[in-house]
Amino acid sequence: MSVQLPDIRVLKYYSKCSIIELMASSLPDKEFLGTLAKGLSVITVFDEKTPVLTVTAAAAAIGVSRATARRILHTLHQLGYVEQNGRSFSLAPKALDLGYRYLSSQSWIERAGMLLKVLSEEIGESASAAVLQGTEIVYVAHVPSRRLLSVDETIGTHLPAFHTALGRVQLGYLKGADLWARLKSVRHSSYTSSTIINMQGLYDRIQSDRDQGFAIIDEELEKGLRSLAVPVLGRDDNLLGAISISVNATRTTRDYLRTVYLPKLRAVAVNITDGT
Amino acid sequence: MSVQLPDIRVLKYYSKCSIIELMASSLPDKEFLGTLAKGLSVITVFDEKTPVLTVTAAAAAIGVSRATARRILHTLHQLGYVEQNGRSFSLAPKALDLGYRYLSSQSWIERAGMLLKVLSEEIGESASAAVLQGTEIVYVAHVPSRRLLSVDETIGTHLPAFHTALGRVQLGYLKGADLWARLKSVRHSSYTSSTIINMQGLYDRIQSDRDQGFAIIDEELEKGLRSLAVPVLGRDDNLLGAISISVNATRTTRDYLRTVYLPKLRAVAVNITDGT
Repeated sequence: MSVQLPDIRVLKYYSKCSIIELMASSLPDKEFLGTLAKGLSVITVFDEKTPVLTVTAAAAAIGVSRATARRILHTLHQLGYVEQNGRSFSLAPKALDLGYRYLSSQSWIERAGMLLKVLSEEIGESASAAVLQGTEIVYVAHVPSRRLLSVDETIGTHLPAFHTALGRVQLGYLKGADLWARLKSVRHSSYTSSTIINMQGLYDRIQSDRDQGFAIIDEELEKGLRSLAVPVLGRDDNLLGAISISVNATRTTRDYLRTVYLPKLRAVAVNITDGT
Repeated sequence: MSVQLPDIRVLKYYSKCSIIELMASSLPDKEFLGTLAKGLSVITVFDEKTPVLTVTAAAAAIGVSRATARRILHTLHQLGYVEQNGRSFSLAPKALDLGYRYLSSQSWIERAGMLLKVLSEEIGESASAAVLQGTEIVYVAHVPSRRLLSVDETIGTHLPAFHTALGRVQLGYLKGADLWARLKSVRHSSYTSSTIINMQGLYDRIQSDRDQGFAIIDEELEKGLRSLAVPVLGRDDNLLGAISISVNATRTTRDYLRTVYLPKLRAVAVNITDGT
């Protein structure tokens, strides 16, 4: 049976893509360190549903022998990334370090956090920064609004890129073929009656958002939630991420977002770029 | 020249402990996967001062050959953990995932975050949760106060365990020898005129905090900052972490912390335990 394997570059778009799929790819790669890949893969097996792993469970989860799983967990334990309790292994707080390295190595994120805090205090609404990762956005900064009904995303939270202002405004920076590949790689769900799930419709909206330099999501992801996002660029006009303001739809109109908040959000984006 | 190498268990207390030191340890360890260790080590080279790495710089930083460094960066790139721009490599947002796995696999953290939010809104002060890691604490939840002068720690931030309420109240759960080893492994700096830097003094304070079930830090880390912390235990009385309330010293007395806030904070800790 001949199976058409996806290109390794397309595979990478899947944030949930397992190392097993990657290694099953037909491309021979002598430079690829399978042991490193399997070790990182074991870390990503842990989540809310799998807080602890035995050697046997780890072996089954990533498709390696018990001996290999044992050596991986032993190594991660020696390095302080996992804790051992009898035959059970769980992630240690040191694993947080690995993620924190990303946040601390991206100087624009700290700057964005400070500037968004000032903006959020001025307008009394929540403000966020996120980066695009495959077909999702990952929050890297968030300032909750002072109001009671506020959006509560936290750093590291994932949301579908195609249905968030933060995502759409970044997707427009991709080449057409790349954008189509990502559009096709996910099943687009209706979150509300306003969610755009038609692929051509999403493609066109992303292009027009790119042209106008901002994206507005009007109750497409959640009833009562409106968001405005603009891209954050580096000095070389490379895309770093995006920043947004989220408001309660019953309180703030789409027009108000465009006329009052858009100039303020753009000023923050320019200020971030200037600091890079 | 004969050098006394520290025990591998002591080495692990150093959060900055490099894999190089660990591998230089005299213990032969056939189960240890050097490739996995070196790969993780490359991720931790990235920080605010080193946002990008070339193959040569990565090789120098972790003490491996250029060929090995190249294969590590290539593998991390294939897996989506690093991005490549010409000869420069930087961390990709996917690295955040590795840290997020820890947060999502520890169910008490999410519960602590929700309960601390309610507490923070009730008392109008900032509240936090942290775990002990070697000689440091790592914030895993934080709710800023609604007041202007608030403490702004974020998830993933490290602070010295011996000079924070969140750290001291956890250090008391260590065995005496372990506590002494950690006490001796760091140089204790005077942050303010009230900082306890005497090791016996710190040891005694940690023991009495353990006996009373809470720790108060009174302007020892920062002028004007008072903190109260209590331990968070699992159902088996195992230590999970600690939670704290931080206040402005000019506004809230130490007595008020003890009589009004301590019962509230303890109630949250019990509530977290009940949910585990």
